[in-house]
Amino acid sequence: MAKYAVGVDYGTLSGRAVLVEVQTGKELASSVYEYPHAVMDKTLPDGTPLGRDWALQDAQDYLDVLAHTVPAVMKESGVSAEDVIGIGTDFTACTVLPVKADGTPLSFLPEFKNRPHAYVKLWKHHAAQDKANRLNEIAAARGETWLKNYGGKISSEWTIPKIWQIVDEDPEIYSAMDRFIEAADWIIWQLCGRETRNSCTAGYKEIWNKRTGFPSHAFFKALDPRLEHVVEEKLSRDILPLGSRAGTLTAQAAKLTGLKEGTAVAVGNVDAHVCVPAVGIDGPSKMLAIMGTSTCHIMMGTEERQVPGMCGVVEDGVMPGYFGYEAGQSCVGDHFAWFIENCLPASYYEEAKRRDTNIHKFLREKAEKLRPGESGLLALDWWNGNRSVLVDVDLTGMMLGMTLQTKPEEIYRALIEATAFGTRMIIENYREYGVPVEEFYASGGISQKDPMTMQIYADVIKMPVKIAGSLQGPALGSAIFGAVAAGKDAGGYDSVFEAARAMGKIKDTVYEPIPENTRRYDQLFREYRTLHDYFGRGGNDVMKRLKKMRKN
Amino acid sequence: MAKYAVGVDYGTLSGRAVLVEVQTGKELASSVYEYPHAVMDKTLPDGTPLGRDWALQDAQDYLDVLAHTVPAVMKESGVSAEDVIGIGTDFTACTVLPVKADGTPLSFLPEFKNRPHAYVKLWKHHAAQDKANRLNEIAAARGETWLKNYGGKISSEWTIPKIWQIVDEDPEIYSAMDRFIEAADWIIWQLCGRETRNSCTAGYKEIWNKRTGFPSHAFFKALDPRLEHVVEEKLSRDILPLGSRAGTLTAQAAKLTGLKEGTAVAVGNVDAHVCVPAVGIDGPSKMLAIMGTSTCHIMMGTEERQVPGMCGVVEDGVMPGYFGYEAGQSCVGDHFAWFIENCLPASYYEEAKRRDTNIHKFLREKAEKLRPGESGLLALDWWNGNRSVLVDVDLTGMMLGMTLQTKPEEIYRALIEATAFGTRMIIENYREYGVPVEEFYASGGISQKDPMTMQIYADVIKMPVKIAGSLQGPALGSAIFGAVAAGKDAGGYDSVFEAARAMGKIKDTVYEPIPENTRRYDQLFREYRTLHDYFGRGGNDVMKRLKKMRKN
Repeated sequence: MAKYAVGVDYGTLSGRAVLVEVQTGKELASSVYEYPHAVMDKTLPDGTPLGRDWALQDAQDYLDVLAHTVPAVMKESGVSAEDVIGIGTDFTACTVLPVKADGTPLSFLPEFKNRPHAYVKLWKHHAAQDKANRLNEIAAARGETWLKNYGGKISSEWTIPKIWQIVDEDPEIYSAMDRFIEAADWIIWQLCGRETRNSCTAGYKEIWNKRTGFPSHAFFKALDPRLEHVVEEKLSRDILPLGSRAGTLTAQAAKLTGLKEGTAVAVGNVDAHVCVPAVGIDGPSKMLAIMGTSTCHIMMGTEERQVPGMCGVVEDGVMPGYFGYEAGQSCVGDHFAWFIENCLPASYYEEAKRRDTNIHKFLREKAEKLRPGESGLLALDWWNGNRSVLVDVDLTGMMLGMTLQTKPEEIYRALIEATAFGTRMIIENYREYGVPVEEFYASGGISQKDPMTMQIYADVIKMPVKIAGSLQGPALGSAIFGAVAAGKDAGGYDSVFEAARAMGKIKDTVYEPIPENTRRYDQLFREYRTLHDYFGRGGNDVMKRLKKMRKN
Repeated sequence: MAKYAVGVDYGTLSGRAVLVEVQTGKELASSVYEYPHAVMDKTLPDGTPLGRDWALQDAQDYLDVLAHTVPAVMKESGVSAEDVIGIGTDFTACTVLPVKADGTPLSFLPEFKNRPHAYVKLWKHHAAQDKANRLNEIAAARGETWLKNYGGKISSEWTIPKIWQIVDEDPEIYSAMDRFIEAADWIIWQLCGRETRNSCTAGYKEIWNKRTGFPSHAFFKALDPRLEHVVEEKLSRDILPLGSRAGTLTAQAAKLTGLKEGTAVAVGNVDAHVCVPAVGIDGPSKMLAIMGTSTCHIMMGTEERQVPGMCGVVEDGVMPGYFGYEAGQSCVGDHFAWFIENCLPASYYEEAKRRDTNIHKFLREKAEKLRPGESGLLALDWWNGNRSVLVDVDLTGMMLGMTLQTKPEEIYRALIEATAFGTRMIIENYREYGVPVEEFYASGGISQKDPMTMQIYADVIKMPVKIAGSLQGPALGSAIFGAVAAGKDAGGYDSVFEAARAMGKIKDTVYEPIPENTRRYDQLFREYRTLHDYFGRGGNDVMKRLKKMRKN
């Protein structure tokens, strides 16, 4: 008798549910619901203006996703609620909100409706940058050893800068909140009526470590005396590893979703990390690159190594029992989109139109014909700074080799190659610091739609590139965790590794490195690396000086 | 009683005559004639195929220019031939042809009509590159001291590689020619019935030096035994300084042009060099930049200095009595044209169309609003290699500082700024080697049409930029030399300095450096210089390696 699990993926603008067969990973139905409030970055719904770099959401939208999408997949698939054994969810992170002791978001309370700090702070709320800067200064000055677990820098997107902004700018909201919680954990609370915290967001976003816990009271006090006991007062030391069961569906949540009361609920998870089992990864040294506007690289290791330029290493941060490593490239799809918007000449649009073909396809066809090194171009992929391995937002793009014969498709391909070299830098950096990388998987839009780019990646990194088998990687990953929360006795799995092997999927097509191309890319990568270090490690800080001049 | 001189400028695709009032420099009439054969780079008129990098012309076209344009300016102005006291001409160089002892081009003879080597080799005939390479190797190996007078390298465009190609590939043509002559001198021969050779092309293109003469027989023999006596057999040791009179119009030439027999004829001259008196330059340390697809920088000095990266230093090479210095940037207007053709997005064309404005104007208006350093971009202007001061065709373009916010107009402006930095490198290089540069003049299309670019140049080089007063600089310059050939007694001038002061013209508008901009450009130039040396002087030869890889 087939059993099923539901996965719900909360993205930046919408939520998506899929219903998955537990034995096979087959996706029977999916449904999307766009957040009615989308991203609030100018005003609150009542017109209250927001500051620069703010980005808020309304938590009601998350509940509405459950109410719309889960019943929809049940209806579409015709599966009975009896046969749905578990539900898992994943969320953008660090997306956080202040709530009361019963889980009610402060923004639901009439008295706080017009208070920006009462709302969900979306991951890309960047208004706490000054707090992050001060936090990093203070941590460095104090010699905080945990800093190295985050590549030496805490981001303004993470929990502590965000809550510090609240206590500083609206202390009344700070006092009124009983808990400050990741949306990833809050949605689980809504499903099973019990507050839990997951090891992934705690580790990557809240500076928690399974062995050493949170930073000391003295550290928090050094930031702001009001934050001295922030962990006890607003966060939690009670952290569950990924793969745990958070609880079961309450009657109310069952009513909302159309699932059965008592259905198993997995602990909260994060959109990128949950993709790992969705491609069938079940152990260490297998890197998954989630390639979209930017790329996130997730991998597990058997040891905690402090690797410069990572976003973080967190025990149980991806799957229980392993150290989760995360790295990132801040400009991938964005890079190509910039080129198409700003650099693609009118004549190419006209030619594409004449041939009745899409401009992207037209350009790709031209770029595909080029052999590695044929254009003579080489670029550094730093149009949006460098996340890993240099962790430097003040770096900028570079390209060289242009001649009067240089064509747009050559520039385009050089930008793609540059991002592949950036990925190889990340891989080699891990290896240099003792973290092996043995396999490479890709998911996300680019992996599905762009065979040329994937072949370039295979040729540059000199490993086969395996492609995610599902278009809905995060939702499938969440369903996998749902099946694990249910457990074997209920028809699910007792371990996420077993579930990943059974339910995770890759495509039949694997991009194999082409020896002739890898030889040529080896040469180009040597040049890339030299320029990477010259411009990125202090050989010539011209990019920073120009950026500074630009600001003046 | 007003007197007049005619100047005829032979360009790459057409010839142009102007009629100028000798007392004032006022231009009364002008006429253009396009060469019917234009540039032959695929086949001869009879279909005989040409090799790669060939570029030929038909000398008949040059005679036709005289027959069409001189009568036209006489007619348009209504001036009497009695009052025209002199004629001067200028030509592209090194543009050379094989002729018989009476001046008849070999290509005019029926037996050679289908022989490519019988035709005029245009300046941009590049098929003798292998000869130039071997010449440079041999000259360097022999320690030829004259090599330093040409920045260390003889170009494939110049006389000796071109004639070497003939003797090697078509020895019969080599034997059949009695003279091998610059078109600049050949046209004078046609006007006054007498062969002369001018100091400008002899010095810059034939490796002649006023004091030391030509390279030794031993050197020519080392190239090819058949070239041992090339100077005596095909060239000439009888060189006249610029500003001399070559002779007077023959009856036949008078008939062709409609001028009077006996009218004074100036010795041959070169299109760039003849522009110097046309802007009123009458002495040393005043640099003229002739800005078109590429830029040529001409200046006089009082001493012969060996400055690395020049195209040449030649006594009497610009005006008699001074050392003429020439330097060059191989990619200026071409650079901007490349950008507009290959990088300007469709949306800009649409916007320009919507506003009913020209795309160039639209782009310039956007670029004009940017302040120095505001874009954060910096480029090396090497899209077509670097002529001066690095003399390296294997260098390529570089740009850095790009972000996701970078706009097309910022890239465009950065390319313009890069060429201005390249000019400043040339100026500073002269100064470092003891050749002062005190004033700066600009002529050519860009100087007339692009105030933004000229202001950028003034701000970058920190000198006022004076702009040529005539749209027909070369033809005016030729007319000035025509007036000097006539002499004072005939109503002209006895010296070109005097003539330049009277007939040369600059516009009232002078671009003055703006102190705030010069300060910012000083900072940017420091960065440019560091990158120039890093990529251009061996710090990182990545450009050469990529170019080599490209060829494989």
